[in-house]
Amino acid sequence: MSNNTLQIRRIAIDTYHENVAYLHRDCGVYRAEGFQALSKIQISVNGSKVLAVLNVVDDTCIVLPGELGLSEQAFAQLDATEGSLVTVNHAEAPKSMDAVRRKINGERLSQDDFTHIANDIVDARYSKMEMAAFLVATGQNNLDRDELLYLTRAMLESGDQMDWHEALVADKHCIGGIPGNRTSMLVVPIVAAHGMLIPKTSSRAITSPAGTADTMEVLAEVNLTPEQLHDIVRQERGCLAWGGTARLAPVDDMLISVERPLGIDSQGQMVASILSKKLAAGSTHLLVDIPIGPTAKVRQMRQALALRKLFEFVGDRLNLHLEVMITDGRQPVGRGIGPTLEARDVMQVLQNDPDAPTDLRQKSLHLAGRIIEFDPDVRGGQGYAIARDILESGRALVKMNALIRAQGAKKADFNPGGLCQEVFSTREGFITSIDNFQMAKIARLAGAPMMKKAGVDLLKKLGDRVKKGDLLYRIHAEFPADFMFAQQLAERNNGYLIGDEAQILTSLVEL
Amino acid sequence: MSNNTLQIRRIAIDTYHENVAYLHRDCGVYRAEGFQALSKIQISVNGSKVLAVLNVVDDTCIVLPGELGLSEQAFAQLDATEGSLVTVNHAEAPKSMDAVRRKINGERLSQDDFTHIANDIVDARYSKMEMAAFLVATGQNNLDRDELLYLTRAMLESGDQMDWHEALVADKHCIGGIPGNRTSMLVVPIVAAHGMLIPKTSSRAITSPAGTADTMEVLAEVNLTPEQLHDIVRQERGCLAWGGTARLAPVDDMLISVERPLGIDSQGQMVASILSKKLAAGSTHLLVDIPIGPTAKVRQMRQALALRKLFEFVGDRLNLHLEVMITDGRQPVGRGIGPTLEARDVMQVLQNDPDAPTDLRQKSLHLAGRIIEFDPDVRGGQGYAIARDILESGRALVKMNALIRAQGAKKADFNPGGLCQEVFSTREGFITSIDNFQMAKIARLAGAPMMKKAGVDLLKKLGDRVKKGDLLYRIHAEFPADFMFAQQLAERNNGYLIGDEAQILTSLVEL
Repeated sequence: MSNNTLQIRRIAIDTYHENVAYLHRDCGVYRAEGFQALSKIQISVNGSKVLAVLNVVDDTCIVLPGELGLSEQAFAQLDATEGSLVTVNHAEAPKSMDAVRRKINGERLSQDDFTHIANDIVDARYSKMEMAAFLVATGQNNLDRDELLYLTRAMLESGDQMDWHEALVADKHCIGGIPGNRTSMLVVPIVAAHGMLIPKTSSRAITSPAGTADTMEVLAEVNLTPEQLHDIVRQERGCLAWGGTARLAPVDDMLISVERPLGIDSQGQMVASILSKKLAAGSTHLLVDIPIGPTAKVRQMRQALALRKLFEFVGDRLNLHLEVMITDGRQPVGRGIGPTLEARDVMQVLQNDPDAPTDLRQKSLHLAGRIIEFDPDVRGGQGYAIARDILESGRALVKMNALIRAQGAKKADFNPGGLCQEVFSTREGFITSIDNFQMAKIARLAGAPMMKKAGVDLLKKLGDRVKKGDLLYRIHAEFPADFMFAQQLAERNNGYLIGDEAQILTSLVEL
Repeated sequence: MSNNTLQIRRIAIDTYHENVAYLHRDCGVYRAEGFQALSKIQISVNGSKVLAVLNVVDDTCIVLPGELGLSEQAFAQLDATEGSLVTVNHAEAPKSMDAVRRKINGERLSQDDFTHIANDIVDARYSKMEMAAFLVATGQNNLDRDELLYLTRAMLESGDQMDWHEALVADKHCIGGIPGNRTSMLVVPIVAAHGMLIPKTSSRAITSPAGTADTMEVLAEVNLTPEQLHDIVRQERGCLAWGGTARLAPVDDMLISVERPLGIDSQGQMVASILSKKLAAGSTHLLVDIPIGPTAKVRQMRQALALRKLFEFVGDRLNLHLEVMITDGRQPVGRGIGPTLEARDVMQVLQNDPDAPTDLRQKSLHLAGRIIEFDPDVRGGQGYAIARDILESGRALVKMNALIRAQGAKKADFNPGGLCQEVFSTREGFITSIDNFQMAKIARLAGAPMMKKAGVDLLKKLGDRVKKGDLLYRIHAEFPADFMFAQQLAERNNGYLIGDEAQILTSLVEL
């Protein structure tokens, strides 16, 4: 029998969420097996099997004949020492691709199908190409409600699940798309001050100018280990940490690494992604915020209501107490867009500063109030008043400072980036529209969130009256290149429409 | 402005139909730009722009900070010398991905949409992941007939087109799935002997045990340059060459490199693939062979008729004179499966050997006859008789020998592989079914087509009567490992069903 044994060599190439193996073109095993570059091969050692995409190498400095080079991801997954002997074979496509093909052919998939797919994905058996096929096949309306439930359950069960050993573990999630929407950083201190457990983990921004983790990082450490997270939550009843250290619903992360560059997202996948992550994080009670507006992710009330029904259907069957609030997504929330500017807004609200942005304050109180009403001892409708009381009495600020100390305080500097461009109104009238996408794009070009002090500071909001030459907003940046790109974009389209009072969209119901 | 200039370094890694670039993690440009591994970057030099997927490297032996490593594909496409300076930026996703997303959302695409997609694919702007999204989005019934026409036209125009400067350039294509179906190697000599131009280029087998190019290669050279191809065709009126040297409908090859591993194929894509390739090859008249049967690619008459209509619709609008024949796909054609064994069958037919397989002979005469009827001077219905005459008179053999000489004769050895396993019938009865997939799989495991002498030699065909212990077929291999795998598979399922005479599927119309 031909000898398929090779010696492992670790190759210091980061191939990001995909296993890659390297064989020299003159390697006997490569020639005998008839592999071709970008075949998938199966690497076996001590009962452990790992799949990798194969690249063929013509440079003995990278890999020698007789060696099997492994990218960082592949090496980590195989978990064997450099120099060990392994065998390689042609890899069959993962068996669950059969289910994907059946879905492409229009068939309905079962719970088992989704479970096998999720397991294959989490075992890195799916290349990005195969994940793309799965995502497009199951996107749009291609899954019915039950299939969506199966998918969510499969994603949830693909990784670890946290258990807080309490009957009520609260959480909140906004579907996104609204810059400046840092309500979590107010909701968590308010709800934790009430005494409810709210261990909030958040993601870093991928396409937006700031995620909750990025903004909290202005004030405190967010990269906490699961152990640190547990201690802080036990002590303070809440936290505002980055969710990347625990292995929660790993399939979600892998699918997102394909969804984002492809720019595809469907309501079904959004529901499966959010609910699997929250349930894996140990939540028992979840508040979902769906902002709607002409430049929000969800444009119409009808769409928001359909999405709400999906969340309710899946959540109920997975024993998650779930409430959905449909909120105002017609413009950015607050004034600041970008980590430092948003952190400033948050602290102003917590400090009961009269200059604090009213919309951020009000929205946060409503959301916090609704979560407080998860408490069986709180009468329905009383949540808002309780939340407002916690905020106005200063208890929310005390709790936030406690969280910051517990997570590890940073020297917070609320001065935005030194390079500043002011953008003025070119006519008289009312602010009739602010484009969420455009504002987010300008802030990102300015450098947010990587440059924490970069972003946009809004001085005028929807419905405000302006004269020609009035200041609409300021762009802040830390580096000239970023600054220039942001300026150029704002010059082409500053995201604001000025018109007559009648043009202002006043009611969400019209959407 | 931050300096995004780097020095090119050629990396001897073959990443097969995908551009990859390598940056060192400590490289200033990598850190400043906020790229993450597997972002796409755009590399610019002298007005030339190339997109590549980015891998991050931690080994200065592979790439140094300040250098941009390029995989072989990327280096070839960029076409600059090692050491040149280039600039890198974030790459936007190809603009035409917008059209792909619209299709995912259920919209209809225009000719311009498909043209932009094809151009982006041919410029290597699409990663395999993006091609997978496109294929699934446009698969199954997701394209209507007009969209299919647009796609075919876009694929055709994405590469070079050959022009033979004759009014009638004949071609033939079988949609595949039937082992042993080497009718082209009889049709081409017969039609060329008649005097019609038939420059036949074929592919090598990707999933089957032998393609026409693999089988012809037993007899003669097939890797001809476009120039050699032209000369031979002018001289002999035909050829049987490998189609890989000319750049015909390159989008097709790139899509196939994703379709095959994903195992997806839809009728629409099949039509677009075949017609774009044939038109690019300069064909004016095309005969399409659609075999149907329980283990063929097309299982039902209804499906074959729908496919025929698709071919006719698109072909007519692209000025291709197209005829479709629906043929018998209930079992392999001929006796041999695998290059050497099939070449033997072909030569037996050409030599008018009484032992030549009748089904291969008859099918080839019918196909050749239909093509001969493309000739305006041939009366409808007379083609078969003309073809048979050319064969029986020996003119087809003379022509084949001329083609072999012109392409470059090989020392043909029709002895199959030395390792031989005989497979016997376990009961008495009639051969009621032969599984095309299983026979192809056994032949491939035995080593075909890489090992030319490997394969299967069928001694009994559908409808034959057998006694217990009668020889059904022989497995041939050249290497013990291949031999063993093929034996094991045949032992589990030898692909034959023996039953009562009444169970034999006698008519295609029943499908």
